[in-house]
Amino acid sequence: MRTVSVVIIGNEILSGRTRDANTPWIAEKVAQVGVRLLEIRIVPDIEEHIISAVNELREKTDYVITTGGIGPTHDDITSESVAKAFGRELELNQTAYDMLEDHYGPQDFTKARQKMAYFPEDVTLIQNPVSAAPGFQIDNVFVLAGVPRIMQAMLDEVLHSMDQSPPLLSTTVACSLAESDVAEDVGSLQKRYPNIEIGSYPHFRGGMMGLSLVLRGVNQEELDQATQETIDIIRQHGDEPRAISAHSSNEFIKDFVG
Amino acid sequence: MRTVSVVIIGNEILSGRTRDANTPWIAEKVAQVGVRLLEIRIVPDIEEHIISAVNELREKTDYVITTGGIGPTHDDITSESVAKAFGRELELNQTAYDMLEDHYGPQDFTKARQKMAYFPEDVTLIQNPVSAAPGFQIDNVFVLAGVPRIMQAMLDEVLHSMDQSPPLLSTTVACSLAESDVAEDVGSLQKRYPNIEIGSYPHFRGGMMGLSLVLRGVNQEELDQATQETIDIIRQHGDEPRAISAHSSNEFIKDFVG
Repeated sequence: MRTVSVVIIGNEILSGRTRDANTPWIAEKVAQVGVRLLEIRIVPDIEEHIISAVNELREKTDYVITTGGIGPTHDDITSESVAKAFGRELELNQTAYDMLEDHYGPQDFTKARQKMAYFPEDVTLIQNPVSAAPGFQIDNVFVLAGVPRIMQAMLDEVLHSMDQSPPLLSTTVACSLAESDVAEDVGSLQKRYPNIEIGSYPHFRGGMMGLSLVLRGVNQEELDQATQETIDIIRQHGDEPRAISAHSSNEFIKDFVG
Repeated sequence: MRTVSVVIIGNEILSGRTRDANTPWIAEKVAQVGVRLLEIRIVPDIEEHIISAVNELREKTDYVITTGGIGPTHDDITSESVAKAFGRELELNQTAYDMLEDHYGPQDFTKARQKMAYFPEDVTLIQNPVSAAPGFQIDNVFVLAGVPRIMQAMLDEVLHSMDQSPPLLSTTVACSLAESDVAEDVGSLQKRYPNIEIGSYPHFRGGMMGLSLVLRGVNQEELDQATQETIDIIRQHGDEPRAISAHSSNEFIKDFVG
């Protein structure tokens, strides 16, 4: 499986003002095309922070997606920072310039708007069907807008250019036991199924603690066996699974047990 | 102002299964006590990822908060990983052991539950009023539970031990202009007020693009002046501010301008 990391650029999330809507969206979308999200970083609009996040993550994962900071204002410094991360110059991209001039009209194509036509050398533009200003791909890094609706449109294009795999198969078994009731048995189950990733997620619901056990893997038969053993463990501890779901897309699981 | 970073440990967020509720909570709480959140990393339950996130961030910021991975199951590897990050051994903490034994009763204090009494050497425990198993402080790193209700209770204790400042003052001015309409004027405003941090956040609401300009600073008079000039800029561009809020807590701003 290919891996991807995400850099969310924006003071507004770190200050607590805005809730980050892009991370959960990206997490679901990349999971659906079988690309593993390995790390997310949320960094401020400060050049050195953007540069170090991009440079560290493009070594660590196959792809990097950044969101935010490609607009026309003084705090939009992503394109310049990414250019510096790659040691490239920022240059006027004639295609983007023409596209933006066409969108705004020659009269209203101000200097601030022209800023959105500057990109690092040798990039591939990513179309913005909402408000014209494009994102770009530079090597394995995809630089997208921060406004969720625009980011989502750009991400569709990005996913097509990634090396996809079938999504991981997964099952979720929810029960009313405490995590520590089944910890030893689930730990030994994990040892017997090294190819299945077993996660244990306690939660509160309606004032009661509950537990979701999530199993992930690529082999359906192995996953089914491990799921059956998980159900057996719950029954051995005197409980009955409250919900069992088995799907290859994360979306449905969330609706079902979340 | 002191700075803090956050490490969210958990595969469930990266897989898209669970929406991260801890980040927005922590962002608001630390802002209220005048500690600046500088970076957030979401990493998987993999030892080397936890170690490098903790070691990089404890150099970069005054404080680090981690959430998740301190429970009784096989995928709870935070305490061990943090011990390795500091080059310390994991040892039985007698206070935690006694507290947990008291909570579960000697009969039910299984080996899995005893795991939650092991911590790196020389830590200060952080009480868990919900489910007994404590978090801990090691130097400038605070290791908290991942379940939101428990994390929130622990965070209250953590905030008291941080060096607090008065919260930043801020104003938000919302209008119906496009970001690029005012980009040049706001950019020159930022140059004239280097001590005020001006952020520009376009958004969709009811199908229309809109813009929030957020100004932050410590000097009330300077902030008021810059806010008045922001309002003037909007009027010069033929629009009227839709909402103006001025507060020293982020919570109200969020309710006000959405």
